[in-house]
Amino acid sequence: MYDASVPLFTASLRNMRAWLDKAAEAGDEAVLADTRLAPDMRPLTAQYQMASDTAKNGIARLTGLTAPAMPDTETSFADLRARCDATIAFIEGVDPALFAGSETREVVLKFPNGMGYSFAGAAYLTGFALPNFYFHVTTAYAILRAAGVPLGKPDFLQHLGAPKPAEA
Amino acid sequence: MYDASVPLFTASLRNMRAWLDKAAEAGDEAVLADTRLAPDMRPLTAQYQMASDTAKNGIARLTGLTAPAMPDTETSFADLRARCDATIAFIEGVDPALFAGSETREVVLKFPNGMGYSFAGAAYLTGFALPNFYFHVTTAYAILRAAGVPLGKPDFLQHLGAPKPAEA
Repeated sequence: MYDASVPLFTASLRNMRAWLDKAAEAGDEAVLADTRLAPDMRPLTAQYQMASDTAKNGIARLTGLTAPAMPDTETSFADLRARCDATIAFIEGVDPALFAGSETREVVLKFPNGMGYSFAGAAYLTGFALPNFYFHVTTAYAILRAAGVPLGKPDFLQHLGAPKPAEA
Repeated sequence: MYDASVPLFTASLRNMRAWLDKAAEAGDEAVLADTRLAPDMRPLTAQYQMASDTAKNGIARLTGLTAPAMPDTETSFADLRARCDATIAFIEGVDPALFAGSETREVVLKFPNGMGYSFAGAAYLTGFALPNFYFHVTTAYAILRAAGVPLGKPDFLQHLGAPKPAEA
């Protein structure tokens, strides 16, 4: 459960943080921060916030910890970098021993309207946390790409490092 | 390894298949099939093909099977539905017993230029296959949303079913 959550979340949060450097070179930070793919979708800042929320709340729900509150006040790229850093610091600070039994720990997701889902931890991670996390990561990438920021698949998979000569 | 791959791939491929029905109602199939988010990104058809490739090749590499060849000739929504169906059928037909030991099975990714990556199976799944799969799933969704197709998060997470009254 640890191996299927912590390294995935931290790798993509580090990648997202790095995209901001290329975005700052390519465009106007304030404009990009408020850019969205469709009028009824959330802007770039919110995609970063929701990726952070899905990651930190996911780890908290699986381990029984309380995730640090982050009030979604980010507006600048500097703010978003700090949000990534704080999220990574929380996740990497969690004792791996706390994941023991997390595959069967009950996780309840409750929405403001009182509806929600109840999962075993493993089904929560694979059915909700991972797809929802990558949704926001990729939507952030898509906003930047559609706005002309020169990113590519190596930026999305930056955690792999540079490819090496391969024997197959 | 089975639980962290097969159900995730098949859930999102079924979701992607369903998005085509809403897309067909909202727009012109031929136009949408060739729509891209940025001039140097691949169009909708290719996003479906690459999601399929990542899923079926991922399962094949983890289990030692050979994935069915799919020559990327899809142009219509009917073709894309059939691609989703064929991919799901292959993945769901794999004997779960073949995943035994897959976490340490060596996986080599070799690109046409001779470069690539070598992974243990678990690192391949979490470092490459899952993020790359969700990249193409979400990019397909993003293309449709940016084109005005009325999709929402419940369509992205359709595999969860409708939420129910929650006790938290």
